[in-house]
Amino acid sequence: MALAEAVLRLAPGDEVGVALRDLPAGTVLAGAHGEITIGSHIPQGHKVALADCGVGAPVHKYGQAIGEATARIAPGDHVHTHNLGMGALSRNYEFGTARISPAAPAGPRPVFQGYRRANGRAGTRNYIGIVTSVNCSASTARMIADQFRGPVLDAFPNVDGVMALTHGSGCGMVLGSEGAEVLVRTLHGYAHHPNFAALLVVGLGCEMLQTERFLDDAVSAVAVERLTIQESGGIRASVRAGVELIGKMLPLVDGLQREPIDVSELVLGMNCGGSDGFSGITANPALGVASDLLVAYGGTSVLAETPEVFGAEHLLTRRAVSPAVGEHLLRRLAWWQDYARQGGGTLDNNPSPGNKAGGLTTILEKSLGAVAKAGKAELSRVVEYAAPVTGPGLVFMDTPGYDPVSVTGIVAGGANVVCFTTGRGSVLGCRPAPSIKLGTNTELYRRMPEDIDINCGVVIDGGMGLEELGGAIFARILETASGRQTVSEELELGQDEFVPWQLGTVT
Amino acid sequence: MALAEAVLRLAPGDEVGVALRDLPAGTVLAGAHGEITIGSHIPQGHKVALADCGVGAPVHKYGQAIGEATARIAPGDHVHTHNLGMGALSRNYEFGTARISPAAPAGPRPVFQGYRRANGRAGTRNYIGIVTSVNCSASTARMIADQFRGPVLDAFPNVDGVMALTHGSGCGMVLGSEGAEVLVRTLHGYAHHPNFAALLVVGLGCEMLQTERFLDDAVSAVAVERLTIQESGGIRASVRAGVELIGKMLPLVDGLQREPIDVSELVLGMNCGGSDGFSGITANPALGVASDLLVAYGGTSVLAETPEVFGAEHLLTRRAVSPAVGEHLLRRLAWWQDYARQGGGTLDNNPSPGNKAGGLTTILEKSLGAVAKAGKAELSRVVEYAAPVTGPGLVFMDTPGYDPVSVTGIVAGGANVVCFTTGRGSVLGCRPAPSIKLGTNTELYRRMPEDIDINCGVVIDGGMGLEELGGAIFARILETASGRQTVSEELELGQDEFVPWQLGTVT
Ligand SMILES: [Ca+2]
Ligand SMILES: [Ca+2]
Ligand SMILES: [Ca+2]
Ligand SMILES: [Ca+2]
Ligand SMILES: [Ca+2]
Repeated sequence: MALAEAVLRLAPGDEVGVALRDLPAGTVLAGAHGEITIGSHIPQGHKVALADCGVGAPVHKYGQAIGEATARIAPGDHVHTHNLGMGALSRNYEFGTARISPAAPAGPRPVFQGYRRANGRAGTRNYIGIVTSVNCSASTARMIADQFRGPVLDAFPNVDGVMALTHGSGCGMVLGSEGAEVLVRTLHGYAHHPNFAALLVVGLGCEMLQTERFLDDAVSAVAVERLTIQESGGIRASVRAGVELIGKMLPLVDGLQREPIDVSELVLGMNCGGSDGFSGITANPALGVASDLLVAYGGTSVLAETPEVFGAEHLLTRRAVSPAVGEHLLRRLAWWQDYARQGGGTLDNNPSPGNKAGGLTTILEKSLGAVAKAGKAELSRVVEYAAPVTGPGLVFMDTPGYDPVSVTGIVAGGANVVCFTTGRGSVLGCRPAPSIKLGTNTELYRRMPEDIDINCGVVIDGGMGLEELGGAIFARILETASGRQTVSEELELGQDEFVPWQLGTVT
Repeated sequence: MALAEAVLRLAPGDEVGVALRDLPAGTVLAGAHGEITIGSHIPQGHKVALADCGVGAPVHKYGQAIGEATARIAPGDHVHTHNLGMGALSRNYEFGTARISPAAPAGPRPVFQGYRRANGRAGTRNYIGIVTSVNCSASTARMIADQFRGPVLDAFPNVDGVMALTHGSGCGMVLGSEGAEVLVRTLHGYAHHPNFAALLVVGLGCEMLQTERFLDDAVSAVAVERLTIQESGGIRASVRAGVELIGKMLPLVDGLQREPIDVSELVLGMNCGGSDGFSGITANPALGVASDLLVAYGGTSVLAETPEVFGAEHLLTRRAVSPAVGEHLLRRLAWWQDYARQGGGTLDNNPSPGNKAGGLTTILEKSLGAVAKAGKAELSRVVEYAAPVTGPGLVFMDTPGYDPVSVTGIVAGGANVVCFTTGRGSVLGCRPAPSIKLGTNTELYRRMPEDIDINCGVVIDGGMGLEELGGAIFARILETASGRQTVSEELELGQDEFVPWQLGTVT
């Protein structure tokens, strides 16, 4: 078999390439400079050695060191946890030495059909949200939302749905502590999200977290109602009252209409979950192309998942618009190293069993692939978890890597469309924001066709280039913002995936 | 008005009593030793001074010091946070100096109609459980459970329901850390709960927490099935597969029959939430009578909520069966003081705004009332959060006070019936265990009649004594264990209230 058909070398000089298919032991691959023989079975997406590496030698992929050989490596060897480790890689931090401002393509500016809210913000969906202050009102909120599923909404075609935002906290907490503030920021962000056209806030009554902490007049909603179970006479009475209140909101919300809005008002949230050996070479860099396009048009794009950036942060600090922005990122990484240590771990623990099975060996390798989502644009700002994202440009939000917690923070920040890349098949949805699922490989797309919006495996086996695929993703972002349903919206995902970061080690 | 009609003094010599009704300023109360005049409005349930207290003097209720006067107090004054604080109360720890083994009443031993499981355990309900390993399968699990609500179960009268156990974790965690072990223990406890007659375990596929960690052959279930979204072809395919698997379980589970089981196989979980000034004088001591009866018959009763015991732990150590048990309790309290400090709080922060509005001033006052649930029986054992409770006797489980987290731990430990006391109107349910809601006052019972099972306000205004009410609660526990539905079961509560303790400060 020809080497080029079986193994992808990502940059000249890399000592490893990526297996494009399962390579049985003994397979002989013929390249320009001779043959190599596969030593032991190498699964698709895993790394194949293309050169010799002595113990302690750096091993490169993407032209970047991803670790050091921990055993002698010969061409044709499977390179993974048994012979590759992080070693003591030194990183040299520079600020602003690699700033790039992508230029907008010539031609008319793209627009999307969105909802212009009274407070000036731009929505891409038209939901009614039921926000809970405490777990004690979670069941009640869901009972109310359950009354508005199915045909009952057929008479209100402009209403995307009624959803309950429930969580496990809101009492038994230390008011004013970092953990409490994070919950308050998250609820505040959702209550003010431009995709909520109306709000019902449901509490128990005696909880610590009072409504005033996360609700003020700056909401996007045209109607805001509140009720507590203790004042309403119990659960059944609250459900009846809530259903009646929402019944009155429906015609109001349904009367709102989409209108053309400039592309620069999109806030794109980006995330990856269940990564594999293809994430960093198909879906993530293709999304990076789309992100750069959005930034070029004056829009906002949000990179997140701090633990997954660990090891590649020096590439981001070089792109920072100022030393202050670069230093902010490094402060958050230092905080994370402490936080992980307190929890008994290290940031290097991050590749999950699934990630490793997919062929990713070190967190650095995974990070280089993860940062590829952010394209090449300069880094304009760093914000805390769930804080309002003010663009334009590429913004970094400090979040865990764990998907539901990370995406909850990003949506709280105001993302009105999300792109989520996955190799193993993560199925996250994040109503009230639409989530576009980008699969990294064609096998996944065939196996879970109803859970993936775009197959990025075409970069490997469909002959499509990254620039072309990135353009297609950008077009899909605009269509989705204008109302096209994503697979996870068809499944109504997002209620159970609303998981505010509860501080205490969640990496 | 007569003093005795307006104010309840709980022990002779107490400097404060409890207002049995709202007392406007200027109300004159005539007692055996003269008149007192109410200085400012005192809400029902709040404390009324019956004697003078100088600054720094201890203030007694229940014959126990509940704090020190922080301002001069005169008879008729409202006593609350403005003139009462914890001060520097010293506690003297003794072990086993106050052991009491309640004796079983004469007559035949009570039995309940329960489900005898193949592994020997005794169930009080017959549920099918859908257990999730990670948040990524939460929506899928709920979609499956949703297919078995309503009339579809009418053909299976012995099946109590199909419920999904979802949570926000399962990935992005440090395997082997305390936090991960707590989640594993919780899922293990539910997967082995005798109220689950059959189990379906749903995962995503690539998560860190693998099924083997919380599932083994010692389950109570007659059928155990597993599926992962990634292997099943996505969410829709998983829902179809899950619905089919549960469809096959239904006749099997429906064929199981209740049979007489000795009262000693009951494991009673106890909790309080939204406490008020009546909790410690009506519902809690009445539950204490029922708990002592169960212990007398060789059953098991579980006290929990460590932060709410703080301040009254010296009363529990005196009841410990051994110094080791008493020291175990003190070690957990010391751990909690650290944990609270790390979170920026102290254990004295615990009374919530709702508790304070209800008339509880200090954590010590609240703790004395909380511990009243445990009656007078000796303390036989202390167990960690969500660990298997092995009786017989009174067991203390180390949990937060926050209701859903605490009760989740207790049910994980194997409680097959729960009693929950509330003054403000907490509405917690905890399927698969039935939860009997005990209201502390008649006004609550009138305001939220559909959310309270038993009105313990009759101790104040219905002429019923604590012993009589405790006997009635004990009888209701047996009826409930035998199948009588509680108000929270009628509402199907328990899916959203399953909240495993995520370590990180939750007091
Ligand atoms: Ca949730
Ligand atoms: Ca992620
Ligand atoms: Ca039934
Ligand atoms: Ca839950
Ligand atoms: Ca509680």
